[in-house]
Amino acid sequence: MANEGMCTRLSGTEKVIKTLKRYIAVTMGDVNGIGPEILAKALARLDLGGEWRLVVYGSRAAYEEARRWAPEAPDARVVSNFSEAVDTLGAIPFIEADAPIPERRPGELDVDAGRCAIRWLEEAVGAAQRGEVDAIVTGPLNKQGIHLAGYTIQGHTDHIAALTDSPDYRMCLFAGPMRVVHITAHLALTEALRQVEQERIAVSIRLGHEALGRLDIPTRRIAVAGLNPHAGEAGAFGVEEVHAITPAIAECRSEGIDCSGPHSADTLFLRMKEGEFDLVVAMYHDQGHIPLKLIAMDEGVNVTLGIPIVRTSVDHGTAYDIAGTGRAREASLLAALDLASELASSTEEIAR
Amino acid sequence: MANEGMCTRLSGTEKVIKTLKRYIAVTMGDVNGIGPEILAKALARLDLGGEWRLVVYGSRAAYEEARRWAPEAPDARVVSNFSEAVDTLGAIPFIEADAPIPERRPGELDVDAGRCAIRWLEEAVGAAQRGEVDAIVTGPLNKQGIHLAGYTIQGHTDHIAALTDSPDYRMCLFAGPMRVVHITAHLALTEALRQVEQERIAVSIRLGHEALGRLDIPTRRIAVAGLNPHAGEAGAFGVEEVHAITPAIAECRSEGIDCSGPHSADTLFLRMKEGEFDLVVAMYHDQGHIPLKLIAMDEGVNVTLGIPIVRTSVDHGTAYDIAGTGRAREASLLAALDLASELASSTEEIAR
Repeated sequence: MANEGMCTRLSGTEKVIKTLKRYIAVTMGDVNGIGPEILAKALARLDLGGEWRLVVYGSRAAYEEARRWAPEAPDARVVSNFSEAVDTLGAIPFIEADAPIPERRPGELDVDAGRCAIRWLEEAVGAAQRGEVDAIVTGPLNKQGIHLAGYTIQGHTDHIAALTDSPDYRMCLFAGPMRVVHITAHLALTEALRQVEQERIAVSIRLGHEALGRLDIPTRRIAVAGLNPHAGEAGAFGVEEVHAITPAIAECRSEGIDCSGPHSADTLFLRMKEGEFDLVVAMYHDQGHIPLKLIAMDEGVNVTLGIPIVRTSVDHGTAYDIAGTGRAREASLLAALDLASELASSTEEIAR
Repeated sequence: MANEGMCTRLSGTEKVIKTLKRYIAVTMGDVNGIGPEILAKALARLDLGGEWRLVVYGSRAAYEEARRWAPEAPDARVVSNFSEAVDTLGAIPFIEADAPIPERRPGELDVDAGRCAIRWLEEAVGAAQRGEVDAIVTGPLNKQGIHLAGYTIQGHTDHIAALTDSPDYRMCLFAGPMRVVHITAHLALTEALRQVEQERIAVSIRLGHEALGRLDIPTRRIAVAGLNPHAGEAGAFGVEEVHAITPAIAECRSEGIDCSGPHSADTLFLRMKEGEFDLVVAMYHDQGHIPLKLIAMDEGVNVTLGIPIVRTSVDHGTAYDIAGTGRAREASLLAALDLASELASSTEEIAR
């Protein structure tokens, strides 16, 4: 099989033995959040004897502490750089990157936890840019912790886009058969509405089309959501469908992309869930986040398109309220690893 | 039991025998849509021997034609006014209201079908205003048909509000444990954002609180959604949470209403679904419609609050594409009848 993804491979019967290993960098995120726990729990469930290997950018001590929730998780070994990571004799290589790692205190805001999380992220992005790893999967950051540490970034995705010099990136949310590309992300809704423009929509459609091409599915049916109630009913309420969305769809169709719309947003996500479409282009953050978070349960994955590396992320925060209790669930991290391996396995070029 | 609703009463064991009958007016909507079919199918499933009786404002011929999909549906008898409807010996009374009823041609746009639908609606609203019926449940209209017939109304709800002189009405969507009051309805989103104002939100919270009081549930926990991504993160993106939503919540809490927020909209509907809240106040049409239509399947019910009568409605359109095929499902109409009887059974006064 061309591509089964990392996690599905666990129960697969056809395992392709390759001499060339491929790597995914996983960042631990904030050590005081649930990052260490979900990492230990996910590693305990992964079959790491196949094509894919992991390298963790994070604290070995925090991982060891979290292993009490997942005793079967593999051993860890600290290495100082990627070239040392390629042979750790079955142990998971951890790159701590000389960060000022604080002792883990689950649920506590900590300036060093914020600083480490950013440091590990930047190291992992560098490894992807240098081609050492094929994809990165990021654990949850605490925005307050980052701000305490003096960073002014809005969050993960914006920072990765800046690090990779990618002005036209898109935040996406994938969950099983539901996939959404958002034309904007963390903006006030009034500002997001001003950005409902033909070119921004067309770029989003193209990025969605290219991402679908890297998945192991036969179709690339893209539905573009309307902005207004009932997609504006042909201009009866709101003009964005007429002035921006419809022309963007026409433009992309003329390029051979299978896209349609604008569709009424209030029934569109059910239609995608039932298999009519492979991906929706949403006009603002909550238009895609509300339905996917309602349906996805723990298995949503954040994906960044329009950057020159493969990057997925868990779709949840640091969950300080349950950190250290053992209640955190690893499903989103497993799904993020699986999707990262799938996207990175494709022979299609990454668009940006 | 105080109130089991019409439909749940079907399988209930404790049936309260009352000599005083109560009436729900049901409008057929557009005869060329699925209205006649869902009516016949719903009537076939209702136990009409209890407290509640129905009077239909619609075409007996269209109903008879649709009975081929529900042969067990009860007989119909045309009556000329409500006083004749009280004794039809087991047959369902139909008030045709001297409307120019066209022959049923499923799926065809027809000016007389539009005219009749409005006529029946206006008659039913009049019956409710005169106290002849305790509630009205409306079948689906075709907006194009209505416009052909010369009406300029946006739709059902707006017209009912105008007929009852109710400037401050709210469109709601209920589906099982999920209930949403929208602060605005069919407006361009840019215009809806301008209407995110403290007083409009406070009125919506109060109407939701009063509606919950008429249901047979022990709590009235209202959650108010934020407008911006992550409810604006304390003003980081967007100011409406700070300037309008939070003050409206404070105002209503000072009146003793159990309300909280602003909550991040992208996780709020899952929280309501899981039982943490009884009702959400949504900041615009799609914020509530996207999650409820995704979850509700066929069982969503539209409710109008802030009018002096009880009114519920099916949560779907005329579905011309499947009209006449027998594929239409009656679940939403049954849920609308059930909710109407529940709201009308309460001894609480209707707020407006």
